Amino acid sequence: MDLKEAGLCEGISEVIATTRSASGVPNAAPIGFLTREGNYLVKLYKGSQTLNNIIETKKLAANVTDDAVLFVKAAFDTLSANFYSLFQGFPVLKEANSWILFKCDFIEERVESFLFQLTPITAEVNKKGVRAINRGFNAVIEAAILATRYGIVKDEREKEEMQKMVEGYAEIVEKCGGRKEKEAMRVLHEKTTRFHVISTIIEG
Amino acid sequence: MDLKEAGLCEGISEVIATTRSASGVPNAAPIGFLTREGNYLVKLYKGSQTLNNIIETKKLAANVTDDAVLFVKAAFDTLSANFYSLFQGFPVLKEANSWILFKCDFIEERVESFLFQLTPITAEVNKKGVRAINRGFNAVIEAAILATRYGIVKDEREKEEMQKMVEGYAEIVEKCGGRKEKEAMRVLHEKTTRFHVISTIIEG
Repeated sequence: MDLKEAGLCEGISEVIATTRSASGVPNAAPIGFLTREGNYLVKLYKGSQTLNNIIETKKLAANVTDDAVLFVKAAFDTLSANFYSLFQGFPVLKEANSWILFKCDFIEERVESFLFQLTPITAEVNKKGVRAINRGFNAVIEAAILATRYGIVKDEREKEEMQKMVEGYAEIVEKCGGRKEKEAMRVLHEKTTRFHVISTIIEG
Repeated sequence: MDLKEAGLCEGISEVIATTRSASGVPNAAPIGFLTREGNYLVKLYKGSQTLNNIIETKKLAANVTDDAVLFVKAAFDTLSANFYSLFQGFPVLKEANSWILFKCDFIEERVESFLFQLTPITAEVNKKGVRAINRGFNAVIEAAILATRYGIVKDEREKEEMQKMVEGYAEIVEKCGGRKEKEAMRVLHEKTTRFHVISTIIEG
């Protein structure tokens, strides 16, 4: 199965992982997905719903998207049922450009995370297209990733540095982004009120 | 003509502009391409070959790519003839996912640049696909844009800040990029020896 066709290239892909619990509750959250020499690996942090679900049901779908709003919502919100469609009972995202369903095998436990090896079961490509590079889109992704980490950082100087970086990303979104990217930044702001710096820029 | 189909969405798209001089010599260079409410605008810096060619021949093709190496080469190298194909005598990039040919009308002169309004003539989509977000790819683009600006910045503190940022991008490429992104970063390093910081990371 050529996962490049479905959008997973070498390196770390930022995708939205969909999973389900043993009782069938779906979940969506961004993850970094490592592709290296034909191997697929994910590192999942302890306490995350994605990890809990994989321990229970041993499957994960990697949903490939270029929708900045969807990415931010998956990071900070609970997606409602109408975001999902079911493939043989497993939740995937309706609006994903593609998704790949994997079987997950436990490799090792680390201090803060678990490592899994993934084996592809099936893939579906929903929307092929062409899209020019947009720095605003890229800045939303960076800001969202920073924002998910912000909560676990203790060091005040590091927190300050992160805020400064998010300020820079918000400026790039204002300058280079389209409506979708600006909406995504507003959602990010709503969901992460701790980032005062974003509110200053967006509301200012 | 729906340029969204060809990859140009609202906001600023980073594309490779191909142009030709009156005597027929092709040129390729990255530009920021602004799409706003159905208007297409580009700001071109004085002294750039892209500007000189547009003054001479009043046409520009916006080539959409997700090839990090091609982007960096277009920024810092002279692309050889075999990178181009000709559409009615006008150079476009063979490897572009899509290209859109525009007529360029002068709007105004600014201190360091000229502003042009663009009208699409025709578009071609060569390769549709799906591609997951890769932070390494995005970091290459940011580093390349910074590197093109580095030469014109005079302030030493700003230069230092830029070097620190490029250092961060190089780390992201090492961590998240695939072979293409790592190769692009090596090309960037070769072509911009002034960035000592890149050499430290890549060769270290």
